[in-house]
Amino acid sequence: MKVNIVEEILSANDQIAADNRHTFDEKGIFVINLMASPGAGKTSLILRTIEALQSKLRLGVIEGDIASRVDADKVAAAGVPVVQINTGGTCHLDAPMIRQALTDLPLDDMDLLLVENVGNLICPTGFRLGEHAQVMIASIPEGDDKPYKYPAMFTQVDALVVNKTDLLPYLDFDLPAFRQVVMGLNGDVRFFEVSCKTGEGLEEWAEWLVELDEMGKVN
Amino acid sequence: MKVNIVEEILSANDQIAADNRHTFDEKGIFVINLMASPGAGKTSLILRTIEALQSKLRLGVIEGDIASRVDADKVAAAGVPVVQINTGGTCHLDAPMIRQALTDLPLDDMDLLLVENVGNLICPTGFRLGEHAQVMIASIPEGDDKPYKYPAMFTQVDALVVNKTDLLPYLDFDLPAFRQVVMGLNGDVRFFEVSCKTGEGLEEWAEWLVELDEMGKVN
Repeated sequence: MKVNIVEEILSANDQIAADNRHTFDEKGIFVINLMASPGAGKTSLILRTIEALQSKLRLGVIEGDIASRVDADKVAAAGVPVVQINTGGTCHLDAPMIRQALTDLPLDDMDLLLVENVGNLICPTGFRLGEHAQVMIASIPEGDDKPYKYPAMFTQVDALVVNKTDLLPYLDFDLPAFRQVVMGLNGDVRFFEVSCKTGEGLEEWAEWLVELDEMGKVN
Repeated sequence: MKVNIVEEILSANDQIAADNRHTFDEKGIFVINLMASPGAGKTSLILRTIEALQSKLRLGVIEGDIASRVDADKVAAAGVPVVQINTGGTCHLDAPMIRQALTDLPLDDMDLLLVENVGNLICPTGFRLGEHAQVMIASIPEGDDKPYKYPAMFTQVDALVVNKTDLLPYLDFDLPAFRQVVMGLNGDVRFFEVSCKTGEGLEEWAEWLVELDEMGKVN
């Protein structure tokens, strides 16, 4: 009797995420999954990234929201191919939604695809999209206690962009302590401190993306 | 043949929410379900409410978080009975979690129970807890486009507390336009503008809670 041992059973989502990843690698597209609370600055970071990299890399964007197309309109105005996904009520993107969105993007003319997930720190952690890197944005006004409350998100991301540093003078946010707690949860995380309003700190972020694109993978 | 027509079939959650409501009404406890993004100021508003009302009403608090007890510790330090619910990974409280928490609260010595839901604008909209009023906190740094992206939350709440008005000078937030959009979605919503940092606007909020407690119901 022959016994087949199935080493790893992929969920339906993970299977399609693997298909997406295969497509990205075949086309040479580096893909970032951007996750954050509502209003932390996902779209602002995307617009700043377009500004910094549009002349160096061919960009694409997928916007995920419960409803509306306000974010996609902003990206389109910046001259970058964009697809808006409206999830209805679902609190995260998933791999099939991305698969569908890819049919509307010029995959043969793209180096870097930025995917903006639905705004919250919980649901997106459970659904891989086929991305190469997971990036979280945390913003100063949200407070420095968030790693205690949403450990899964902080633990699994490859990079953490701390946004709205221009507001530090007006808020009680202990940045060194925050950084220490995050590093305790996730020693490998890349840490960026930026202000999408003033532009401070964004060069380092943009350079990291160019490096990733050149290496074709994280680390 | 007799045909039974079931007019309304309650979900399991709604059935337990109705039980909770019955308990609250029997004990004369007015219950608020507080919902908001991470870092919008749910716990800060609770602490300010305790400060304003502790001498007038007997308060209780239920804190909902994915993980940690940092919020409950702050409330306990203010001398108010509190239960912390950790949902594990679930992105909202539900009626059974509240039912369970009630066994640890002094229900015979309570006028007002403030329930802090898990931080996001999506999942909590679908689960009634037995509360008398749903209150959303929106904070200025989140931006004024949130009603377009999370219409369900804005549409169904009884009151909207706009927090962090002290940051208005440093941010592009069009408060009159925001208010107009919210009123378009929800003409009955009570609107409060506060700063939990400076204390501005909190008297009106506290007065509303006292009125509700006296009337025993919303509107």
